[in-house]
Amino acid sequence: MHNDNSTEKRADFYRRIRQQHLTPLWEALHSLVPAQPAGGCQAALWRYRELRPFLLEAGDLISAEEAVRRVLVLENPDLPGQSSITPSLYAGLQLILPGEIAPSHRHTQSALRFVVEGYGAYTSVDGERTRMEPGDFIITPSWTWHDHGNRAAAEGGEPVVWLDGLDIPMLRFFGATFAENHDEPVQPLRRGEGDSLARYGSNMLPLRHQPTTPTSPLFSYPYARSREALERLARLERPDPWEGHKLRYVNPATGGWAMPTIATCLQLLPAGFLGQPARSTDASVYSVVEGSGVAQIGGRRFAFEAKDLFVVPSWAELRLEAGATDCVLFSFSDRPVQQALGILRESRETLAH
Amino acid sequence: MHNDNSTEKRADFYRRIRQQHLTPLWEALHSLVPAQPAGGCQAALWRYRELRPFLLEAGDLISAEEAVRRVLVLENPDLPGQSSITPSLYAGLQLILPGEIAPSHRHTQSALRFVVEGYGAYTSVDGERTRMEPGDFIITPSWTWHDHGNRAAAEGGEPVVWLDGLDIPMLRFFGATFAENHDEPVQPLRRGEGDSLARYGSNMLPLRHQPTTPTSPLFSYPYARSREALERLARLERPDPWEGHKLRYVNPATGGWAMPTIATCLQLLPAGFLGQPARSTDASVYSVVEGSGVAQIGGRRFAFEAKDLFVVPSWAELRLEAGATDCVLFSFSDRPVQQALGILRESRETLAH
Amino acid sequence: MHNDNSTEKRADFYRRIRQQHLTPLWEALHSLVPAQPAGGCQAALWRYRELRPFLLEAGDLISAEEAVRRVLVLENPDLPGQSSITPSLYAGLQLILPGEIAPSHRHTQSALRFVVEGYGAYTSVDGERTRMEPGDFIITPSWTWHDHGNRAAAEGGEPVVWLDGLDIPMLRFFGATFAENHDEPVQPLRRGEGDSLARYGSNMLPLRHQPTTPTSPLFSYPYARSREALERLARLERPDPWEGHKLRYVNPATGGWAMPTIATCLQLLPAGFLGQPARSTDASVYSVVEGSGVAQIGGRRFAFEAKDLFVVPSWAELRLEAGATDCVLFSFSDRPVQQALGILRESRETLAH
Amino acid sequence: MHNDNSTEKRADFYRRIRQQHLTPLWEALHSLVPAQPAGGCQAALWRYRELRPFLLEAGDLISAEEAVRRVLVLENPDLPGQSSITPSLYAGLQLILPGEIAPSHRHTQSALRFVVEGYGAYTSVDGERTRMEPGDFIITPSWTWHDHGNRAAAEGGEPVVWLDGLDIPMLRFFGATFAENHDEPVQPLRRGEGDSLARYGSNMLPLRHQPTTPTSPLFSYPYARSREALERLARLERPDPWEGHKLRYVNPATGGWAMPTIATCLQLLPAGFLGQPARSTDASVYSVVEGSGVAQIGGRRFAFEAKDLFVVPSWAELRLEAGATDCVLFSFSDRPVQQALGILRESRETLAH
Repeated sequence: MHNDNSTEKRADFYRRIRQQHLTPLWEALHSLVPAQPAGGCQAALWRYRELRPFLLEAGDLISAEEAVRRVLVLENPDLPGQSSITPSLYAGLQLILPGEIAPSHRHTQSALRFVVEGYGAYTSVDGERTRMEPGDFIITPSWTWHDHGNRAAAEGGEPVVWLDGLDIPMLRFFGATFAENHDEPVQPLRRGEGDSLARYGSNMLPLRHQPTTPTSPLFSYPYARSREALERLARLERPDPWEGHKLRYVNPATGGWAMPTIATCLQLLPAGFLGQPARSTDASVYSVVEGSGVAQIGGRRFAFEAKDLFVVPSWAELRLEAGATDCVLFSFSDRPVQQALGILRESRETLAH
Repeated sequence: MHNDNSTEKRADFYRRIRQQHLTPLWEALHSLVPAQPAGGCQAALWRYRELRPFLLEAGDLISAEEAVRRVLVLENPDLPGQSSITPSLYAGLQLILPGEIAPSHRHTQSALRFVVEGYGAYTSVDGERTRMEPGDFIITPSWTWHDHGNRAAAEGGEPVVWLDGLDIPMLRFFGATFAENHDEPVQPLRRGEGDSLARYGSNMLPLRHQPTTPTSPLFSYPYARSREALERLARLERPDPWEGHKLRYVNPATGGWAMPTIATCLQLLPAGFLGQPARSTDASVYSVVEGSGVAQIGGRRFAFEAKDLFVVPSWAELRLEAGATDCVLFSFSDRPVQQALGILRESRETLAH
Repeated sequence: MHNDNSTEKRADFYRRIRQQHLTPLWEALHSLVPAQPAGGCQAALWRYRELRPFLLEAGDLISAEEAVRRVLVLENPDLPGQSSITPSLYAGLQLILPGEIAPSHRHTQSALRFVVEGYGAYTSVDGERTRMEPGDFIITPSWTWHDHGNRAAAEGGEPVVWLDGLDIPMLRFFGATFAENHDEPVQPLRRGEGDSLARYGSNMLPLRHQPTTPTSPLFSYPYARSREALERLARLERPDPWEGHKLRYVNPATGGWAMPTIATCLQLLPAGFLGQPARSTDASVYSVVEGSGVAQIGGRRFAFEAKDLFVVPSWAELRLEAGATDCVLFSFSDRPVQQALGILRESRETLAH
Repeated sequence: MHNDNSTEKRADFYRRIRQQHLTPLWEALHSLVPAQPAGGCQAALWRYRELRPFLLEAGDLISAEEAVRRVLVLENPDLPGQSSITPSLYAGLQLILPGEIAPSHRHTQSALRFVVEGYGAYTSVDGERTRMEPGDFIITPSWTWHDHGNRAAAEGGEPVVWLDGLDIPMLRFFGATFAENHDEPVQPLRRGEGDSLARYGSNMLPLRHQPTTPTSPLFSYPYARSREALERLARLERPDPWEGHKLRYVNPATGGWAMPTIATCLQLLPAGFLGQPARSTDASVYSVVEGSGVAQIGGRRFAFEAKDLFVVPSWAELRLEAGATDCVLFSFSDRPVQQALGILRESRETLAH
């Protein structure tokens, strides 16, 4: 195609332009514009029964106050040293012991908390406190003051563990990270507990409420209500062949996602459910709430039990199976961003069983 | 200003152009473009204890099936013969006796039902049935099949009365009215009772739900939950000086109004509340749910009790007062339309008590 | 169906409840909820060559300043005395003579101006003046100060006539009419001519522009550009069988209608075009800009020439035909409102020619 | 704070959890959640007069067809080997010689083209061709077929160079990259040149146009019109102290950004303009169209001339100065994404001169 341009001549050219911070697109085009997503991370599963002892050991090793947040970060094996479970998302397990507090700060990163075990903990967000019980989904929106605490053991506080999901890698990527500490370890409360639920959580809104942020004003979604919705749904309709019964948490003021950067869902796979294969460009993190089953991810089988966590890479084929009892999964991904950018792609296959 | 144009000359001109279906704007400008809203209807109150005997008499006079809808229409005294309670809205009280049905039809007019008294009735909308209990707010969206019924007396059915609110005058004005009857008096059910509440009513939505109409997919808002939200709010915050504690019913898929043409709200005035005066361009219909009080409308005092109804004209000054117990009011207006058109105007005054 | 309820017994009941401002729905149900739109107005055409002498006579009869607005209102023959061309819209022809001004005021009603003939006139809106030339479409948005004027004859001013379209009946219906006069007949100018076109009219917007009203910030759409767009379109694509080539004026800051209450369109019917029949629930007013043709409306034939005006009622069947040359039509209706309310309905038929 | 937990004990713990793909958040918290953006790239400027010879040399070295796209990629000095000018964006200069074609393909990455020099080239997008002249801004939306070409020298084709801006790093980050080649090097044309401009570019839209993608349907914004808008603006208003006169390219169907992932702007700095300092979290790439000046970026001075390019990192302080003549700058960034995510932050300072 080219006359006599030797490979050498080109190599020399590449060396010279390199000085100018230039590179030839044609040598990189296929890797820059691949036919399909290149992955970016791998499938992985963490067994909670293996993690738990480490969490408790961390409880001995460092106090919540010294740690600020006593979290073991789940790092994707393909992303060592990046504190990322997928290229765009962070996940960790946080432990707070009875009587501890995790001091107040705020940052532009949005965070979700999904409670894994234990009673007694609470989170305060912009002057309002909410309790944290297993299965509860709680949001600390971008740039809101937040701190956590746990009742003293004498008052019923137990070691409490929750899953933290944040958009840390995403905000790092976009260069939009800001943070600051509160003057006091525990922010003052300005509203009563349950205020947000009363205002925003009953399919009604204050007449003159105007959303000022894209995050849900309802920052706590108790498990009891979400679980009941799934239960009723499972009695009323046949499961979707790929996803079972799957609900997304919603910002009641807009109908959109509860968080602008992270999709959050709760789904029920009926006992014995054997899902069909599906793919999606949004890599997803799953936390098993109830039951057990198997996640086939890109051809590998990951058996899971309650409280385990697993991650499904972008465009990896996923098949979900439930064991002998109903299985409930919480999951999160960067889907809202992919939708806003118009780049979300999904594919569903139907196999004969 | 004008030379020698006599009044006669103009009158002659007016007569001649009238043949061409022309009129001189300058003779009508002030009435066409008035400095303030001209009203269009008057303030009025209906005492339920006076209406109720007529409703029961109507129950003897005609069957629900013959009537199709056994409703006494509340006509604004300024709009006789127009079946309108405000220029844009219709209101009526519907009675359904034990064992009756009101046959299935659909129309482009949207309807709200707010239950005033009695147990046993139900409404079916597009294949799903919901029970109707006092204080429940139920929607039959535009162009959806709907029918009503009541259990037999032997099964606990009681005479049930609800308030109907429709946008009949509005759709007539815009020339967009269509209607048809169902082949069968009672449409077949395709989903279980509670299906919509499970799917849409828990601050979650089915992952792949796409709104296809502007009306809420949640067509029933039970009073128990709405009332509890008000109760909690009243404990958590000080009342707004004009409105007390006021929540609007919301379409959970959009955060917008539950209905595209009619705003619906529930508000609590604490015992002894004495509201400040306010005006709004959306004429409003109120149904008293609990308690008693006084509505001062344009300087006239209307004392009200539970189950009474009253109407506040556009731009009339309104002051609400609660009696010795907490007072709960349901209300509706054409506010969503005025907002969509960018013409809603409000004014609030603060008087020293 | 009903036992022994005599007609008399019912009539007596109706009389008694009438005192309470109650009426029986069942006697009015069919007219309140008709199977199809009942019309509300009739088809009509005004010949400009018949109207023009009256306009000029009005020019002798009253000055623009005395009249405030020297307009002959086009009244639908079915709506006498209501200053309405359709139930929701007002239309009139306004004349302004060389050297005259029409003094500054503002009102919540939105107005469109579509220039029919003459050079020299101008409109000022919120401190910016724009010239008015034949075919130009100009907006005076809700609650903006506006006045009109015309150059002196010595400076080239000619008698100028334009079509006024307003939402007067709609705002009257909703009780949201406010108006006031400016302190001075001619408001002071605060921006240069062409400012809005430069800012908003080039498929670009000021980086930090935030729309504060639903109306287009671009208040003048010169005919030259609109006509050229149609011309190019007509060379590039086949005409739509019902509408020919039809473009809508757009708010560049939202992509929505230029006005929140009134749709405005310009369409080209190629020479010899014979349109298929269509219906729509939005009654429409047409102003013929170029060419001649026939509008078949509900089976009646209305032959039209340039500058004529005609009105098509809601749900009336419309077929448009062009004469021997290309025909250009400007039209307006309440379509944005019907869309916002979710009540717009259209129907298109295909007949063999 | 912690009793006797030695550094060693912790180090041992870190080693053991590392096996489980766990890391302690508390050791990384400050770098993960920094007080301010950490940068991610550095300020840099490329002089076109230094780049141009390399581009022409590339023209000798490889044909457009062999290269598919003959582009020299501008790599941020802090991001070597990543084909990124900012963490989220790609920029390159593309050369197409007379008579060449760059074959048809499509990919999920969105691309902008901003023409730097030369006449004769064209781009085809989904069946429509548009010419490319200096200063024109052209979009190849996500997943649309596109190819480029240049007239033969005998027909007036000149070497043409344009700036390519793509969201390659962003789509790689989100794992949403798909691409495929067209069967034919040059896609067949289905519409005439100018079709999109006629349909969408005149502040009007086809009556029934429904946007199906978030990208502007107007894929070419000729410089003549954009430049004229700036010119008029500069005569009508005082420049913004930070940005001069700055317009953004707009999607006429939504009023939003022309592209969902990349903001594009054109701004005029009047001769002698000395801008105040500003910061923004969206790192930006500038291409100088006319004039010369200085960009002070994070305290470093970069003198620029027409056709030069420079990059401003996230949150770096930027001051722009124009030389002795008006200066025109084209720029692009990931601002639409930061806005959609609710994370855009800006800061403006006012210094006494």
